[in-house]
Amino acid sequence: MGMIGGGPGAFIGAVHRTAAAMDGLIELVCGTFSSQAANSKKMGEGLGLSPARVYETFEHMVEKEAALPENERMDFVSIVTPNHLHFAPAKLALEAGFDVVMDKPMTFNLDQAKELKSIVEKTGKYFCLTHTYSGYPMIKEAKEQVQKGALGKIRKVFVSYPQGWLSSFLENTDQKQAAWRTDPSRSGIAGAMGDIGTHAFNIAEYVTALEVTAICAQINIVVEGRKLDDDGAVFLQFNNGATGLLLASQVLTGEENTLTIKVYGDKGGLEWTHADANSLLLKWPGDPAQIFERYSKT
Amino acid sequence: MGMIGGGPGAFIGAVHRTAAAMDGLIELVCGTFSSQAANSKKMGEGLGLSPARVYETFEHMVEKEAALPENERMDFVSIVTPNHLHFAPAKLALEAGFDVVMDKPMTFNLDQAKELKSIVEKTGKYFCLTHTYSGYPMIKEAKEQVQKGALGKIRKVFVSYPQGWLSSFLENTDQKQAAWRTDPSRSGIAGAMGDIGTHAFNIAEYVTALEVTAICAQINIVVEGRKLDDDGAVFLQFNNGATGLLLASQVLTGEENTLTIKVYGDKGGLEWTHADANSLLLKWPGDPAQIFERYSKT
Amino acid sequence: MGMIGGGPGAFIGAVHRTAAAMDGLIELVCGTFSSQAANSKKMGEGLGLSPARVYETFEHMVEKEAALPENERMDFVSIVTPNHLHFAPAKLALEAGFDVVMDKPMTFNLDQAKELKSIVEKTGKYFCLTHTYSGYPMIKEAKEQVQKGALGKIRKVFVSYPQGWLSSFLENTDQKQAAWRTDPSRSGIAGAMGDIGTHAFNIAEYVTALEVTAICAQINIVVEGRKLDDDGAVFLQFNNGATGLLLASQVLTGEENTLTIKVYGDKGGLEWTHADANSLLLKWPGDPAQIFERYSKT
Amino acid sequence: MGMIGGGPGAFIGAVHRTAAAMDGLIELVCGTFSSQAANSKKMGEGLGLSPARVYETFEHMVEKEAALPENERMDFVSIVTPNHLHFAPAKLALEAGFDVVMDKPMTFNLDQAKELKSIVEKTGKYFCLTHTYSGYPMIKEAKEQVQKGALGKIRKVFVSYPQGWLSSFLENTDQKQAAWRTDPSRSGIAGAMGDIGTHAFNIAEYVTALEVTAICAQINIVVEGRKLDDDGAVFLQFNNGATGLLLASQVLTGEENTLTIKVYGDKGGLEWTHADANSLLLKWPGDPAQIFERYSKT
Repeated sequence: MGMIGGGPGAFIGAVHRTAAAMDGLIELVCGTFSSQAANSKKMGEGLGLSPARVYETFEHMVEKEAALPENERMDFVSIVTPNHLHFAPAKLALEAGFDVVMDKPMTFNLDQAKELKSIVEKTGKYFCLTHTYSGYPMIKEAKEQVQKGALGKIRKVFVSYPQGWLSSFLENTDQKQAAWRTDPSRSGIAGAMGDIGTHAFNIAEYVTALEVTAICAQINIVVEGRKLDDDGAVFLQFNNGATGLLLASQVLTGEENTLTIKVYGDKGGLEWTHADANSLLLKWPGDPAQIFERYSKT
Repeated sequence: MGMIGGGPGAFIGAVHRTAAAMDGLIELVCGTFSSQAANSKKMGEGLGLSPARVYETFEHMVEKEAALPENERMDFVSIVTPNHLHFAPAKLALEAGFDVVMDKPMTFNLDQAKELKSIVEKTGKYFCLTHTYSGYPMIKEAKEQVQKGALGKIRKVFVSYPQGWLSSFLENTDQKQAAWRTDPSRSGIAGAMGDIGTHAFNIAEYVTALEVTAICAQINIVVEGRKLDDDGAVFLQFNNGATGLLLASQVLTGEENTLTIKVYGDKGGLEWTHADANSLLLKWPGDPAQIFERYSKT
Repeated sequence: MGMIGGGPGAFIGAVHRTAAAMDGLIELVCGTFSSQAANSKKMGEGLGLSPARVYETFEHMVEKEAALPENERMDFVSIVTPNHLHFAPAKLALEAGFDVVMDKPMTFNLDQAKELKSIVEKTGKYFCLTHTYSGYPMIKEAKEQVQKGALGKIRKVFVSYPQGWLSSFLENTDQKQAAWRTDPSRSGIAGAMGDIGTHAFNIAEYVTALEVTAICAQINIVVEGRKLDDDGAVFLQFNNGATGLLLASQVLTGEENTLTIKVYGDKGGLEWTHADANSLLLKWPGDPAQIFERYSKT
Repeated sequence: MGMIGGGPGAFIGAVHRTAAAMDGLIELVCGTFSSQAANSKKMGEGLGLSPARVYETFEHMVEKEAALPENERMDFVSIVTPNHLHFAPAKLALEAGFDVVMDKPMTFNLDQAKELKSIVEKTGKYFCLTHTYSGYPMIKEAKEQVQKGALGKIRKVFVSYPQGWLSSFLENTDQKQAAWRTDPSRSGIAGAMGDIGTHAFNIAEYVTALEVTAICAQINIVVEGRKLDDDGAVFLQFNNGATGLLLASQVLTGEENTLTIKVYGDKGGLEWTHADANSLLLKWPGDPAQIFERYSKT
């Protein structure tokens, strides 16, 4: 694995490195960790990389790695830069024959996303967008419960992602995360919705295996002076007729990071919360007839 | 206290009677419990009322009670009929000089509500609409926390009222509650929104002491064949600039009756749920500066 | 169904009547609702019974009912008296050929329980002890999950029954429930442990299908002047080697009535709480190997 | 700050370093991070320390640092070694004039703890034992609520620390944490009770400002082949007459790391859980008299 981004002050780079290391099958072999060469070099040293494979630019990295013998070069590249730096390295890497793991959201804007999609199709390489939460075993179990019909026909989906860390105006502090995530030139046109609403959206579709076909949103900038939405709610319409609701906010003072999903069908419901990530709450109706049939011999 | 409605198969009448009995200061002395005289008579007997004061019609009751000496007649009347029978007895009782306690929602439609308001103002009598949940001590404590500024400026209100008892089509069964609550001719134009959404709405305004100034709603009929909404969500806009979200549904299979409210300000948040009604969850931010200031000497 | 106990001021009698009425297969036909004939008579009227079948004493009732033609007499009797009045009517009814439904705890003391057991065996009649909570569908589902091995070998059981209603000394008030439940001459030698600890104990054995073989308890009288334990905790040892913990308290100020059980095995755990009675929380381990095997193709 | 321990594969060293860095007032200047000099050197490099101040042994470090001019040498030392290596470096550092921050538990055994206490008293230096959870603002708020009498006289304390990571036998894997924490020669005579029960115990005394005066414990080795307790429960007796219960287990499959405390007094209760660490749940009784008095004008 090679990495683009994830230098000093970054957040998600370390998460990708940890995740990659979990099963012992992936090794970080090269990287361009920062747009500042000195920072990149220092990071590479700290990670124990060979200095020769810590590159000054991602263009350089893709070119040099592609030139290495197949069994020496990186297998794929993990891109963990701010959103405005997703498209260019992804395009370059894909076209040079590398599979790409990309942190969400996909690109800086919709046009880039569409173009990237066609590049992926053309090159035939793997393109993996890391929506973390679908990796939790109990999320997979939830998906399975829906799939096997335990809830009946899905009628309602609630998904909520509350955070509180942007409750006040941190843009002028040295909080590097706050700086780029609230900056339209680096984050794109979506703030909280792009940053965490995308996770909520993904999990809603992932667990139910449904697709959202229409939305109606209320998007707010709560903290004065902020340039991007930091709070919002969305009505969802699914392709099976179900409806839903998505909340994403980074200004709910006192909240940490608790993605929660509830799904209801005509036979039952389920609930999962990141605060108790190894558990899954199953809800069955209290209908006497069903109970009697189910448990009459117990 | 006199009572109109609350006969056999009724739900809320018994709740009003229990509530009235709690502090020992109110006694039920008369009633018209059903539109069917025999049912009313039987109910009165069961409640230990003097047969002379169990009336066949509410018109009769108001007239007869008004004719009694002041220290003998009912002090006020509790109206616990289906929605389409709220306005007429209320108007009659008010104009006959009785204070009125009325179960929510106020009337069958908006015109009646406006007219009733003007009657209340003209007569100068008390008119009390029983939004049960504002009576919980921890809801009052929540209101007090907001009022004294513990949460700072309110920015977000979530209020949710999930039920599951109308998850299937009960309209044709002998479930008397399902029958009238889903019938436009008795319930009015609102189903779940009128039945339980009104509670959620009331509690949102009550706790925050704010007023909702604009809404945008997604209203659904989920169960096939039903005539009124059984599920919905509403974006709320408050008069201080805060926004909010209201959910009310009676088709969330597995849910019982769990009104929940969360309020967030720029200093902190709070949460109350009917499932743990004697408790109040207070949320404070993890901002190091505030913590240091607050607890530096602990 | 006939009923012994359950008169004015009683609590559990109404619960038995409601439960019996739920599926429409049981009808209350006779009763001795109070040791005071006038109260019994009034109760019978309120319940719409024929005056001829509201009896002054339970001895009278058992004798008269037994003398009725088989298709007219009560099928069984529900005994809902305070604990000291469990044994005598049960013995009488069983020996007269009636099945018995008895509210917990079984009897006033251990000797009576043993004798009653032998009477039940001798008469061959049904004897049903109503531990309410085992009737919840999700408790039955929990039992099924354990039985089918979803949790692996059970290693730990936590069961907790917190109440707060006896937080202060109510014995001298007109709270009829507090009066007899804290009175050794009517309740027996166990207070909170007998009243609600028995429910917790029952549910622990019911869900796991294990038997408690040894205990070590800490029993307290918290409220000054009280004569029976109002709070306690018990270490449990089960017959498969598992251990557990049982809590029962009626002095936890602010608590209502929230029985909760958690069970853990070597493969997973589960949790059920009365506050969300239609739901069951399932816990699976985060072990990467298991996850991989389980979800590798998802 | 200097650090002893916290090298590759260590867990708590990084936590101490992060905590020390939070307010920008503490700088890590030297360390002996591992008993293997090469590991220590590598760790120091990664942390950006001057090679001259990464020492091969803690004896060397204490001697050399003490010899530096006062404004250059470390202010205090953080000791984050396994339990059997707590006493020696602490004694050395204290006697050389350094304040000591020590990770819990205090020492390998009781004798060492007593001796260390007398050394602290003799030297007059600060000795700080890091029971992390008392640093949470809402734990401090809980303590304040108790102190100001919001709960009345404390009567019951429940504290529970469930983990699941030792649910199976990891001792023979390369899980360094499992290896030393289950090894009596490095951990001492207590397993789960020493490792996490100490946190639960500390928080119980910290929040209530009470002292435990007597205990009765059920200590188990659940996983076959393990040498130290991995599960247990303790009855607590407090110096004001209150009782309590402490749970600590590392074999509750599916649990992560959720310390929870509940405290009840005669006026109310409170609850805090690590799963929602910024919140505090306050419970007040439903006693009508209190409610009336409190909210009669609302």
